Amino acid sequence: MLTVHHLKKSQSERIVWLCEELGLDYELKCYNRDPVTMLAMPDYKALHPIGAAPVITEGALTLAESGAIVDYIVAKHDGARLTIAPSHPDFAQYLYWLHFANGNLQPGMGRNMILNRLSLPDDNPTRVAMRGRLDRALRYMDDRLEEATWLAGEQFTIADIMTVFSLTTMRHFYPLDLTPFVHIKAYLQRVGARAAYRLAMEKGDPGMSPMLG
Amino acid sequence: MLTVHHLKKSQSERIVWLCEELGLDYELKCYNRDPVTMLAMPDYKALHPIGAAPVITEGALTLAESGAIVDYIVAKHDGARLTIAPSHPDFAQYLYWLHFANGNLQPGMGRNMILNRLSLPDDNPTRVAMRGRLDRALRYMDDRLEEATWLAGEQFTIADIMTVFSLTTMRHFYPLDLTPFVHIKAYLQRVGARAAYRLAMEKGDPGMSPMLG
Repeated sequence: MLTVHHLKKSQSERIVWLCEELGLDYELKCYNRDPVTMLAMPDYKALHPIGAAPVITEGALTLAESGAIVDYIVAKHDGARLTIAPSHPDFAQYLYWLHFANGNLQPGMGRNMILNRLSLPDDNPTRVAMRGRLDRALRYMDDRLEEATWLAGEQFTIADIMTVFSLTTMRHFYPLDLTPFVHIKAYLQRVGARAAYRLAMEKGDPGMSPMLG
Repeated sequence: MLTVHHLKKSQSERIVWLCEELGLDYELKCYNRDPVTMLAMPDYKALHPIGAAPVITEGALTLAESGAIVDYIVAKHDGARLTIAPSHPDFAQYLYWLHFANGNLQPGMGRNMILNRLSLPDDNPTRVAMRGRLDRALRYMDDRLEEATWLAGEQFTIADIMTVFSLTTMRHFYPLDLTPFVHIKAYLQRVGARAAYRLAMEKGDPGMSPMLG
């Protein structure tokens, strides 16, 4: 049995969402964060040496790292319909946004979250540079979502599943105003209209605001 | 014709290395960094809206983002021998390390590089926490490389190609002492013994110390 170990308000929401999109039969185990530090508690950290979300288990296998888990579930649980084949004209776009999620957007959000915590002056050059880099990434994504329904094109894929956390739940940790990015905001409305997304959020983080606005 | 646009001392060395491992017929265009700021110069930034390395072009296609380019070249240029199939016992390990490279290790190096530049006190709690997280990642990788020749197992794969930059050339930007990680150091010696790696470094960054020690 595939078990998804979901740390509340974390990147593991991607895996719950993937399982719901694929209609898989899976077990969901939810773990609370420490209410003071907001970090994972010992029960979650004990699942894997790296101690971060997400983690899945299946038989003897324990696997961490979002991208790895998504690829694993797609390969082992019949998920090819959420991917784009190499022969398709959207293949390169699909690959770009699939890897942009953790190769650019999420590290950019994380760096800015950390710099925010340091109470640096607003004109600190590192802070200005990192905020500029994140703005460029969001602007580029906004341009893409002006021309495409989903990141890869007309088809919803795992590129969307990898990306949305950084634009939504991550804003509980790094407040980011998406007002300048109207196409990203419209995209998040399309995400919120998906039954599988709503179900995943209700199961994983009942009562949490999904930050789609 | 596949063209690899290589910004010197950057993540695009991964793509040069991949092309050499596959024995591809490709064109290599090298771009210097600004000698004062060490950033990419306007000629490189003009290649793609995000303005970061790596970038490839092939016919009408311009593609950025390491993970996307690696997947694209593997799919389009017969690179399956550098991957592990879903039916293989090492499939999950392969996926883990493939995604760990840009999902954990490289963002961790980047965060620590930035915190280093801010001249924070040594006991700044954010700095201590981020250094601790990087140390845990390196310790876990070191444990893996005690038991395995390459990250996925006995077979050299694109997981290695995605990872090595962060352990070598990245140390020109964030000095990191690998002395406590003897199995990572031995692994880097195995990397340096590969003809394709040496050729890629000689072509892309002639005269640069490869930081394998």
